[in-house]
Amino acid sequence: MYRVDLNSDLGESFGNYTIGMDEEILKYVSSANVACGWHAGDAMVMEKTVALAKEFGTAVGAHPGFPDLVGFGRRNMAVTPDEAKAYVRYQLGALMAFCTAHGVKIQHVKPHGALYNMAAVDEKLAIAMCEAVYEVDKDIIFMGLAGSKMITAAEKVGLRAASEVFADRAYNDDGTLVSRKLPGAVIKDKDLAIKRVIRMVKEGKVESINGNDIAIKADSICVHGDNPKALEFVKNIRETLIAEGVEIKNLSL
Amino acid sequence: MYRVDLNSDLGESFGNYTIGMDEEILKYVSSANVACGWHAGDAMVMEKTVALAKEFGTAVGAHPGFPDLVGFGRRNMAVTPDEAKAYVRYQLGALMAFCTAHGVKIQHVKPHGALYNMAAVDEKLAIAMCEAVYEVDKDIIFMGLAGSKMITAAEKVGLRAASEVFADRAYNDDGTLVSRKLPGAVIKDKDLAIKRVIRMVKEGKVESINGNDIAIKADSICVHGDNPKALEFVKNIRETLIAEGVEIKNLSL
Amino acid sequence: MYRVDLNSDLGESFGNYTIGMDEEILKYVSSANVACGWHAGDAMVMEKTVALAKEFGTAVGAHPGFPDLVGFGRRNMAVTPDEAKAYVRYQLGALMAFCTAHGVKIQHVKPHGALYNMAAVDEKLAIAMCEAVYEVDKDIIFMGLAGSKMITAAEKVGLRAASEVFADRAYNDDGTLVSRKLPGAVIKDKDLAIKRVIRMVKEGKVESINGNDIAIKADSICVHGDNPKALEFVKNIRETLIAEGVEIKNLSL
Amino acid sequence: MYRVDLNSDLGESFGNYTIGMDEEILKYVSSANVACGWHAGDAMVMEKTVALAKEFGTAVGAHPGFPDLVGFGRRNMAVTPDEAKAYVRYQLGALMAFCTAHGVKIQHVKPHGALYNMAAVDEKLAIAMCEAVYEVDKDIIFMGLAGSKMITAAEKVGLRAASEVFADRAYNDDGTLVSRKLPGAVIKDKDLAIKRVIRMVKEGKVESINGNDIAIKADSICVHGDNPKALEFVKNIRETLIAEGVEIKNLSL
Repeated sequence: MYRVDLNSDLGESFGNYTIGMDEEILKYVSSANVACGWHAGDAMVMEKTVALAKEFGTAVGAHPGFPDLVGFGRRNMAVTPDEAKAYVRYQLGALMAFCTAHGVKIQHVKPHGALYNMAAVDEKLAIAMCEAVYEVDKDIIFMGLAGSKMITAAEKVGLRAASEVFADRAYNDDGTLVSRKLPGAVIKDKDLAIKRVIRMVKEGKVESINGNDIAIKADSICVHGDNPKALEFVKNIRETLIAEGVEIKNLSL
Repeated sequence: MYRVDLNSDLGESFGNYTIGMDEEILKYVSSANVACGWHAGDAMVMEKTVALAKEFGTAVGAHPGFPDLVGFGRRNMAVTPDEAKAYVRYQLGALMAFCTAHGVKIQHVKPHGALYNMAAVDEKLAIAMCEAVYEVDKDIIFMGLAGSKMITAAEKVGLRAASEVFADRAYNDDGTLVSRKLPGAVIKDKDLAIKRVIRMVKEGKVESINGNDIAIKADSICVHGDNPKALEFVKNIRETLIAEGVEIKNLSL
Repeated sequence: MYRVDLNSDLGESFGNYTIGMDEEILKYVSSANVACGWHAGDAMVMEKTVALAKEFGTAVGAHPGFPDLVGFGRRNMAVTPDEAKAYVRYQLGALMAFCTAHGVKIQHVKPHGALYNMAAVDEKLAIAMCEAVYEVDKDIIFMGLAGSKMITAAEKVGLRAASEVFADRAYNDDGTLVSRKLPGAVIKDKDLAIKRVIRMVKEGKVESINGNDIAIKADSICVHGDNPKALEFVKNIRETLIAEGVEIKNLSL
Repeated sequence: MYRVDLNSDLGESFGNYTIGMDEEILKYVSSANVACGWHAGDAMVMEKTVALAKEFGTAVGAHPGFPDLVGFGRRNMAVTPDEAKAYVRYQLGALMAFCTAHGVKIQHVKPHGALYNMAAVDEKLAIAMCEAVYEVDKDIIFMGLAGSKMITAAEKVGLRAASEVFADRAYNDDGTLVSRKLPGAVIKDKDLAIKRVIRMVKEGKVESINGNDIAIKADSICVHGDNPKALEFVKNIRETLIAEGVEIKNLSL
């Protein structure tokens, strides 16, 4: 029996600003990455998002980012491993308080945006983030880019790693994502995207941008829910996976 | 046998900015109120402060404040009880992660500055803050102004309350602090200040600004350590209390 | 010939967060109050908003607010007059740089949200804000609540004042706005709202919530453009005013 | 007759946090780089710093930095040229309002920390910053690392450039600063540092870390005043320069 987790970034609204269709997307994903108030989200939004996730039975993960609200955490910042460690720990703890109050256990931590991209290629940074988590709760899963330094870091530190794949992104021969700046980086054909994901889950393989089959581990698929079209795609990928005999389960089940 | 807790606000440095003589003051107080990154402190400072407090065997409390770094959390903000609740919960959780990582249990929560002052006179706000704490860990102590709404709120919510007194402040007949804007609000005679504190601890009484004896409960005495003179006073008050047969113990012992 | 200014709060988007239909509303209003990056807006948004306003020939004003992004500047903060002065000056200057670069002159300053509400009833605060403006450019107009301390403050300081009225709000007998917490505070009948505004402009009168006619000066009408329905109302009010022989002109023309 | 400017970073205090001995150092330098509230400084501090600089007759420059208060603007951030342009413009404008109110003209703009370091090697970024300034006031001088992309960028955009040198830093053969991570990067012998500066000013030459004489333009010397020892060095360098026949003059005189 095949299985995979569907995860989405949620709780990204901030004060008077709304992003995302959280109440909709929560019906279709098995894991929610909840923003922790630095690159997105705020304390009131976190409270509400954790309550919503609980209501829908969706697993909750912390989604820590850089202290760069205006840049939505998407701009690389030259932080030290110690800073990255303290930043992940702070945000994990903040979310954990809301989870504890709602009787929800934090399932995973997935760094956001530039923090994710930097950790994927810098093992020292990735190890610092994993230690931030491990020393707080060694049962939390560390979600990172499949085949990246994030996965090896989690294993070295002693955390369970979850390998994340992207349905709509092209891969290089070495398993890294093709830069968005290059042509062909984003797979726009929705049916092809879904087919690729099914193959990743069932065969552990994906065709690289150069036409070569490469190995890939797919514990979780990242999907977006910030507009009606994206939501449609999520429903679609979910239904097709189930029809193909793949169970949608969060990482803890 | 008499006993009392000595508490001080610590971990107030931020990035390149330093405030306080934390390594010194930690030797003399029994409880540290650690800033949580909103009105003061940052993730790196929190990590360091918790480690230091552990080293000195000082009990750790969360010291949440308003999201007003430039105002050091000292300016009243018209927040709703729900906002206050979410703000206290967020900051408590953030500090809790650092404590957990260092094997330290959070002893208490003491709101900072304007959040403290507003809670002292607004029971709804105080109850919201107490709920924020209770739902995360009902064993945490809520520290507030002796005789204020903070104490009754903690009791209503089911938290243990710790009554805080000030050595260098004058009290009104109803047990509230004399406003700093009025003459005589601050007691500048150090010896008198210490004598008043000893009487609060031993007799549960203090002379009000009008010359009347009023009842006051003194579980913890607030002291400052941000300059050499303040530090000298802390040493002094500590030694005098001990000489008078009052044990300095944190709230958990 | 009658005339009036139509003003709207614009440039409130922030980083990845979008608020408002600025490109639409700019076609219908004569003055834009541009957020300055504290309660809303950011440097990139300010650049774009000033360029857009210039393109549409809409007059530009600074819309300074409290340093409270998560509260959208809508929560009272206990600032001193000196702080309010420095805060208004800083934000005015920031916007002025974008205006200068685009060859646009700042027409007015209108404080935002809680800063506006506090200035309306606290003349010291209002005077501090007016001085902040006057000392930078004494030709800038200070826009405030009709009949409030903001208007008298501007006159005392030597700035030209513009009296702002609200189409959809009820007024007390003393000319202050009926609190939103009270029934009848918001006028939901769109046609009635427009009729009231026309009377304010033509007769300088409005019926208070108690049924009494009171005097009111209407230099500018505040309208919103953050949703299609609001936009429809703006078109409507504009067309009706013109049909009634009222010219829509900014404050400088 | 030889001449040189002495510049120092000032106005770096923030709210309750104090950095620097501004009132002391202002007596000895000819130009003050005033922080603009992003990486350091706040609106109240800016008001006070501009007033102080005026009192001492010290020329004022804007010292814009990254939106990274906790990192003091010292961490590289992956911003686009458009973002850098908007950020510099915003901060320049904010300071300009305080200067205008005090009858002070802004002499120069010197980017701070990571923004400075990135501009020194990235001409696109440097050009964006220069355009930010030029479009606001083409008479403002752009101060940057001697021999770097900042200087060529200013010239291309049409701004007057001021070449900054460092007394206590070693130079590579190509005129760039030796990285602080390498041995010998900082010149600790105070007398040697002063001798090197005098030679830069008088001969336009400095000995590189490899022992070669290289050409260097010294319009302004950067000095620090955040501790008594630093202040002593500033007095020293000032007196020695004057004794050697070098006039200390700001860039505008």
